[in-house]
Amino acid sequence: MSVRFRKLALIGIGLIGSSIALAARRQRLVDSIAIATRRPETLAEARGLGLGDIYTLEAAEAVRGADLVILCAPVGAYGALAASIAPALEQGAILSDVGSVKAHVLKVVGPHVPDGVHFIPGHPIAGTEHSGPAAGFAELFAGRWCVLTPAPGVPPAQTERLAAFWREMGSMVECMDAAHHDMVLAITSHIPHLVAYNIVGTVADLEADTQSEVVKFSASGFRDFTRIAASDPVMWRDVFLTNREAVLEMLGRFLEDLSVLQRAVRTGDGARLEALFTRTRAIRRSIIDAGQETAAPDFGRSHE
Amino acid sequence: MSVRFRKLALIGIGLIGSSIALAARRQRLVDSIAIATRRPETLAEARGLGLGDIYTLEAAEAVRGADLVILCAPVGAYGALAASIAPALEQGAILSDVGSVKAHVLKVVGPHVPDGVHFIPGHPIAGTEHSGPAAGFAELFAGRWCVLTPAPGVPPAQTERLAAFWREMGSMVECMDAAHHDMVLAITSHIPHLVAYNIVGTVADLEADTQSEVVKFSASGFRDFTRIAASDPVMWRDVFLTNREAVLEMLGRFLEDLSVLQRAVRTGDGARLEALFTRTRAIRRSIIDAGQETAAPDFGRSHE
Ligand SMILES: NC(=O)c1ccc[n+]([C@@H]2O[C@H](COP(=O)([O-])OP(=O)(O)OC[C@H]3O[C@@H](n4cnc5c(N)ncnc54)[C@H](OP(=O)(O)O)[C@@H]3O)[C@@H](O)[C@H]2O)c1
Ligand SMILES: NC(=O)c1ccc[n+]([C@@H]2O[C@H](COP(=O)([O-])OP(=O)(O)OC[C@H]3O[C@@H](n4cnc5c(N)ncnc54)[C@H](OP(=O)(O)O)[C@@H]3O)[C@@H](O)[C@H]2O)c1
Repeated sequence: MSVRFRKLALIGIGLIGSSIALAARRQRLVDSIAIATRRPETLAEARGLGLGDIYTLEAAEAVRGADLVILCAPVGAYGALAASIAPALEQGAILSDVGSVKAHVLKVVGPHVPDGVHFIPGHPIAGTEHSGPAAGFAELFAGRWCVLTPAPGVPPAQTERLAAFWREMGSMVECMDAAHHDMVLAITSHIPHLVAYNIVGTVADLEADTQSEVVKFSASGFRDFTRIAASDPVMWRDVFLTNREAVLEMLGRFLEDLSVLQRAVRTGDGARLEALFTRTRAIRRSIIDAGQETAAPDFGRSHE
Repeated sequence: MSVRFRKLALIGIGLIGSSIALAARRQRLVDSIAIATRRPETLAEARGLGLGDIYTLEAAEAVRGADLVILCAPVGAYGALAASIAPALEQGAILSDVGSVKAHVLKVVGPHVPDGVHFIPGHPIAGTEHSGPAAGFAELFAGRWCVLTPAPGVPPAQTERLAAFWREMGSMVECMDAAHHDMVLAITSHIPHLVAYNIVGTVADLEADTQSEVVKFSASGFRDFTRIAASDPVMWRDVFLTNREAVLEMLGRFLEDLSVLQRAVRTGDGARLEALFTRTRAIRRSIIDAGQETAAPDFGRSHE
């Protein structure tokens, strides 16, 4: 089966949507790209960057005649988007998305999907802290995983077609149960973001003098957290609204563990602190070995 | 007053000690460098790297005749080191250190310092997650702050001499009260490390299958935390044992703020989540503007 699609419709054209546009174009995976977004400014920016062939503020118009439709907006917008595009979806088309949560997507989009349309939610595990159509680049997905969580009843050949599309853009692909995805991503991505937002918030509450010292001395650890806390607030609001159970479960475990550390600090239990700090190195090593991280010190940040 | 020292003694020759050796040599700030460390293997490694002129396992021997002595070991070792070098310290010498906490250093080292020796604790706010003599590089301190917390009664000219030494190595220098340093660094560095160690620990407790998925999908946030959780466990044990009060105070604030976020997730309070996630961007911007962070997406990590 060919990996080439006739018409790709991207609904939302921020970091992820624009990266798909650039990668799909470069790899010649599509004949034409239709781009829909909410705000005229964003559409104009996408047009200025030459990301597509068709530009519209009507999602349904972009979707008409498309054999691959990918939702690339914050997941909170999916319900309304799905309702508006449903009548325009073509028989035999694949409907997918890139949202950071998956069970919720199946739940809110699924009921709108017409028979004969193959609904295969997806999540490329790749990103940066930047947003908008200008933030995208064709290499974003290279060497990164893309998780697919096909709706019940989708023919395996269709899932394989979408998987091939992602592989051509450089990804490794894994199919998985949506609830399992949400649990794994809660600890891998959502809790790290929650904690990073939280610590940056704690600093934001300090008096101005102290805050400026934190900025000066931020190379000692804090600046790392500000990167992920610079991600799009609406996207992250939606992640926490739509993956509540898994986030609260993992946050509970995180807090239990933190109580143990807190007590070790309070009681001056050096042996326990050292033991807890020692077992964490192996995990970084396995991430580097898995090709998911640079081995260069300090992420390879440049030192002047 | 000249910034050149006759003999620099480095007690401990890991990441920070070796970086000082390389930077001081490159900038011609010292005539000779004496290196003392605890283990013969480390001494041999330092010798193999050509970091100094004199190599010894006796700290007192390195210190003899030195006009600048810098402790570069974990702070938990300082009390014993200070006792052993005190008799060998030369009149008029500067005694400094690089430890990540400062009030404790004044408290445990101070009583050992002979009259006529200028005790000026210091903390270069620079580092990587790597350790040992081979991890150092001369550019480590470039553009980074170095905090000095002179003991009472040290002549300002001596503090200025040490400040000039750090400036020649590329640092900006700031003098401050030790307790204030410890409070600012608790939130800037110690809590970020505690939280990073903690989240990596939570993952280490997951069943093996899930853990390997976290590794695969770690580019979604988790891998950032594993970097600082890969720092030396003994150094960090000592930081938490010696800056307990400030760490517990800042951890308390962090936990209060996290309760607010937790409740917002539980009750689905999207407006509050979005507001909390929005106010954090300005801080990253100010860190980049202050020259303490790269503006490149993803820390400038390379994308293949
Ligand atoms: N950023 C990451 O690292 C990352 C990684 C993996 C997956 N994801 C997922 O990818 C999706 C998009 O993220 P992104 O980083 O590309 O976001 P982004 O750069 O902020 O772009 C979001 C896009 O969605 C559109 N949009 C926003 N609200 C909308 C609404 N209510 N109705 C219709 N369109 C709307 C925006 O349009 P206007 O500008 O016209 O309003 C914009 O085109 C999210 O679901 C996110 O969970 C993100
Ligand atoms: N790493 C950072 O990012 C960073 C940043 C700023 C400040 N600091 C501070 O710098 C100091 C050194 O850190 P580092 O990263 O350079 O550590 P490192 O790379 O682990 O090196 C530590 C050095 O201290 C020696 N040492 C360890 N325990 C000792 C003991 N009980 N008695 C005598 N010597 C001992 C080690 O000697 P052997 O190998 O011979 O045992 C080694 O030479 C610490 O106080 C830390 O708080 C670190």
